Amino acid sequence: MLLVADNLQITVNHVRYAMENRNPAPIRALVEHCLDAGADAMDINPGPLKRNAGPAMTFLVNTVQAVARCPILLDTVNPEALAAGLAACRGPAIINGISLEPAKLERILPVAAGSSADIVGYLLYPNGHVPPDASERMQVAVELVDAVGKRGIDPDRLIIDPVITPITWNDGNRHAAEVLTALRHLPDLLGYPVRTIGGLSNLTSGGIDRAKKIRLECAYSPMLAASGLSMVMMNMRHRETVRTAKTCDVLRRGTIFTWEAL
Amino acid sequence: MLLVADNLQITVNHVRYAMENRNPAPIRALVEHCLDAGADAMDINPGPLKRNAGPAMTFLVNTVQAVARCPILLDTVNPEALAAGLAACRGPAIINGISLEPAKLERILPVAAGSSADIVGYLLYPNGHVPPDASERMQVAVELVDAVGKRGIDPDRLIIDPVITPITWNDGNRHAAEVLTALRHLPDLLGYPVRTIGGLSNLTSGGIDRAKKIRLECAYSPMLAASGLSMVMMNMRHRETVRTAKTCDVLRRGTIFTWEAL
Repeated sequence: MLLVADNLQITVNHVRYAMENRNPAPIRALVEHCLDAGADAMDINPGPLKRNAGPAMTFLVNTVQAVARCPILLDTVNPEALAAGLAACRGPAIINGISLEPAKLERILPVAAGSSADIVGYLLYPNGHVPPDASERMQVAVELVDAVGKRGIDPDRLIIDPVITPITWNDGNRHAAEVLTALRHLPDLLGYPVRTIGGLSNLTSGGIDRAKKIRLECAYSPMLAASGLSMVMMNMRHRETVRTAKTCDVLRRGTIFTWEAL
Repeated sequence: MLLVADNLQITVNHVRYAMENRNPAPIRALVEHCLDAGADAMDINPGPLKRNAGPAMTFLVNTVQAVARCPILLDTVNPEALAAGLAACRGPAIINGISLEPAKLERILPVAAGSSADIVGYLLYPNGHVPPDASERMQVAVELVDAVGKRGIDPDRLIIDPVITPITWNDGNRHAAEVLTALRHLPDLLGYPVRTIGGLSNLTSGGIDRAKKIRLECAYSPMLAASGLSMVMMNMRHRETVRTAKTCDVLRRGTIFTWEAL
């Protein structure tokens, strides 16, 4: 699994201040911390961006790529910010993301069609709700691949997100299990080794006990790995979770195991 | 997953001395430690037992059940020890175990047939070798169910062990993945919700770095849980591994999640 840092988000106060003041130093420090911790890619989530969306995203992308050569996920629902981010990215960019929601299909997908970037596709109903089980998620996946294809976009560019929900939802345990089932069956359903991504931090959203959140992440991330997840979005400050995800890779890689790899 | 302690084994020096001297105190202390750590069942592995096999197993079973009311796994290839253990057990006993190896079918299975205990069935070839992949393991499972049925034993009594191998084997990574595949497909193949068991400590057999062994166990045990494993045999002194296995159960249980459950 590739590890995508979800740390660079506007809800973090010092990120917001740094973005508002166009101060690159705190953001650079955060990105360096994520890379040192083992991040393979950086998600940039600048929030709603009501004003100056384009320049804000350009500033963030340039700040990140000044210290990181890794892929950058442009995590925005704002087409202006997305276009600016795509224009600024000198390395691989990933659009994060689209779904069957009309606003995404009408405003984000055209921008995506005009680029060669990969695209995260969330398995959500057109009304933005989360499908209740694996089979509904797969039905949505088929429709999403279809919608993307109709725009002339190669489905290979899609990275499917089956939508990890908070475990505290009434049916949170069931969703956790259904996401795994969906991950296992998606390649067969779609007929190619589709890449997948999941937001691990969502699982413990709302929790306040850091140790317990990490404990849940450390139990769920190997389940995701065993189900074939390609990329996991996570808090890179959760060192035990990072270590667990890296250990899963050592377990699952095709080469001969050595203790030194751990 | 039910947690089966594999700590009570003859290869542990103070267990061997205690058994040889019929001194129950060190064994009681070990069993109490395992129960406090969260063990749901105790495996008793007295080794080859060349002399006095019956009395030795009787001593061990009586010592264990003096402090534990949990199921006891009688982990022996010696039919005399097995018969004595079955006779001594006042609670649930599990025979550990049989396979397609002729010695097991000829010497252990008849004892099993004369009892009502559950039986661990290892997915091994008749020559004792480990099948290379999931589909071979499943072929062996069908033959094992058949062999058990021919003795008039209800296949529901079988607890299938797909055989976790040391990760350091040349194809150790592949075996780790194939065991998961076998676990996922066995219920469909056999046509009933067959119970399964796996020896987690085998995965890191031969390793000397305790922290790394635990790290591997903590990554692999959620994969086993997600693949439907019913019982996991493990070293209850590995607290992080125990905690991870317990967290998997909280994640996978059908009831509504609460943080207090962690």
